[in-house]
Amino acid sequence: MAAAAVLAAGVRAACRALVAAGPQGAQVRGAAGMTDGGEVAKAQQAAPGGAAPTIFSRILDRSLPADILYEEQQCLVSRDAAPQAPVHFLVIAKTPIPRISQAEDQQLLGHLLLVAKKTTKAEGLGDGYRLVINDGKIGAQSVYHLHIHVLGGRQLLWPPG
Amino acid sequence: MAAAAVLAAGVRAACRALVAAGPQGAQVRGAAGMTDGGEVAKAQQAAPGGAAPTIFSRILDRSLPADILYEEQQCLVSRDAAPQAPVHFLVIAKTPIPRISQAEDQQLLGHLLLVAKKTTKAEGLGDGYRLVINDGKIGAQSVYHLHIHVLGGRQLLWPPG
Repeated sequence: MAAAAVLAAGVRAACRALVAAGPQGAQVRGAAGMTDGGEVAKAQQAAPGGAAPTIFSRILDRSLPADILYEEQQCLVSRDAAPQAPVHFLVIAKTPIPRISQAEDQQLLGHLLLVAKKTTKAEGLGDGYRLVINDGKIGAQSVYHLHIHVLGGRQLLWPPG
Repeated sequence: MAAAAVLAAGVRAACRALVAAGPQGAQVRGAAGMTDGGEVAKAQQAAPGGAAPTIFSRILDRSLPADILYEEQQCLVSRDAAPQAPVHFLVIAKTPIPRISQAEDQQLLGHLLLVAKKTTKAEGLGDGYRLVINDGKIGAQSVYHLHIHVLGGRQLLWPPG
């Protein structure tokens, strides 16, 4: 228990330091030793809304290459460019809704979750996975185009970030 | 950068230790200094499916007290008993679907997300939040009754667990 307390204190200190690092925050590695892609730092600078293309609109119009797993009328599924687990893919809505706090389309939201879970089967994630939707700076949303993160292939920890 | 590297190494080591701790894992504190409620450890022992009542079915039938924020025909919203952020609540489906990998009801799934986002407004989470759905042991699902975690009120980190 003492060792666990020291470890827990270390985690707390590290997390505080990462938050304090803000937009200049160094890239950090997670449980699986993968870079976080500076997601929290990016989220502090990301522009909510606006007409500028995002990385996801550029994947959708094929002006940016991506590892695409699945595509249909309402969404596209692509591997995350900065994976946080052995399997980490994104379900990206084709309609450019900036964030879930601005989403109203119940049918679309349900569909995105069903596509996420179906893709986990194709990816062999029978032992489980985690779905994550970030909203705004506090949620570490770095791209303002509605998408669901799906992570699996390693034990996901708690708290979820 | 050197300090950040040391911190990152500390986080990695702590995370590895927590995973290695397994079902006997000590309770861990997250970025906000709150106990994780042994979520990962509980998840290793939780029974998927089965007819036994879960903590959520007992909240739904009022045999267990809970801090209920909202209730309607399809779901109930309750604060998490082991919060991981200053605001942490659950959107619990009334239909006892064990996990999202067994969910098929697109309308219900979309509705749960809309209730989640509407409750964030009532909770004053205008700066953002994170939605999380755990599936199975790998996802650290500790209660086999479909629910969405909603966390806000502090900076959420990356990776998401």
